[in-house]
Amino acid sequence: MDKHEKRIITISREFGSGGRTIARRVAEELGIPFYDKEIVDQISLESGFAPHFIEETGEHAPGRSRLSYAFAPQGVPGVMNGLSTADFLWNIQCGVILQLAEKGPCVIVGRNADYILKDRDDVMDVYIHADSAFKAERIVRLYGESEKAPAQRLADKDKRRANNYKHYTGQTWGAAQNYHLSLDTSVIDIDTCVELIAGLVKMDEKK
Amino acid sequence: MDKHEKRIITISREFGSGGRTIARRVAEELGIPFYDKEIVDQISLESGFAPHFIEETGEHAPGRSRLSYAFAPQGVPGVMNGLSTADFLWNIQCGVILQLAEKGPCVIVGRNADYILKDRDDVMDVYIHADSAFKAERIVRLYGESEKAPAQRLADKDKRRANNYKHYTGQTWGAAQNYHLSLDTSVIDIDTCVELIAGLVKMDEKK
Repeated sequence: MDKHEKRIITISREFGSGGRTIARRVAEELGIPFYDKEIVDQISLESGFAPHFIEETGEHAPGRSRLSYAFAPQGVPGVMNGLSTADFLWNIQCGVILQLAEKGPCVIVGRNADYILKDRDDVMDVYIHADSAFKAERIVRLYGESEKAPAQRLADKDKRRANNYKHYTGQTWGAAQNYHLSLDTSVIDIDTCVELIAGLVKMDEKK
Repeated sequence: MDKHEKRIITISREFGSGGRTIARRVAEELGIPFYDKEIVDQISLESGFAPHFIEETGEHAPGRSRLSYAFAPQGVPGVMNGLSTADFLWNIQCGVILQLAEKGPCVIVGRNADYILKDRDDVMDVYIHADSAFKAERIVRLYGESEKAPAQRLADKDKRRANNYKHYTGQTWGAAQNYHLSLDTSVIDIDTCVELIAGLVKMDEKK
């Protein structure tokens, strides 16, 4: 890599593609923190909303229902100052991710971190995807069967992520142009993806 | 890489991103043929159209003008059998690319080869892109100034490629999902891209 050293890695991923596993292993390989649940916990702390509610809301495009105001924890409605719950949480999420990036090298999975950190020049943005058969087999193996067919579970989850990304970034989720590196785990296996991403960062450090 | 050994590499690229250079160098590195002008020459031979006309038409979505029929070389209109010039050339292009792939390992640049070869399982599809500033600087350095501003030249050329891809494949050009690997040459330099692509193919051969 040239130009600016990449110290922060954002990993966006399709549900079932193995992106979270890759993110965790890249962080281990490089010996730097991996932020996933930590982000949700911090948003929870700052907003007063429960982690589970934040996880769900963070993947929805906002404005679906005015009822969401009803879920605001005690004392928060005044703080929210007329924002929808989703917009209120989005503002906090941006702050949390910007602060984590300030702390030093790390790997951040999901939560539109590629967009939130777009003004930094030390970030490498990665997108992990896979074909549907690969993802369907993987989610059933990892998360078990559910009432919905695997194909439907994949479509629902990714549609929510894509809508949320579009709403807050104005960009198209999964467009190669938004990422420095995109990898298909149904063809390039997870070990190789980890090696490749960590290798690029190490190569960059040596320069 | 797992599953099927990848012997054929297709490289789709944004104008000015360095994709053609990468394709040529990957072919050199692997000691396999690089098909670029050869495809145009073969389509020219089979269709009777001049190479320059084929180059231009291959990037246009068809049906813009019925005048295109007027450019058909002598004897061809009967063969075209009611197809537009673009559709007629597309059919020949598909045949040429399918035949080249049959001949053995190779690198093919552009011409929607990723889609044309989608039924083979020995193909690695790569997309090369870069940010606008990088591409603008590169096209002026390589191709010189022109009357149009660099940003306009980039937009025009890529729009034509995207329209053509959409028309013939039904897919979105530059969507990460269409490729096994996408690389941003404004962050990952051309040498590294070549090393990375050739490395994946070699790793695959060893298995």
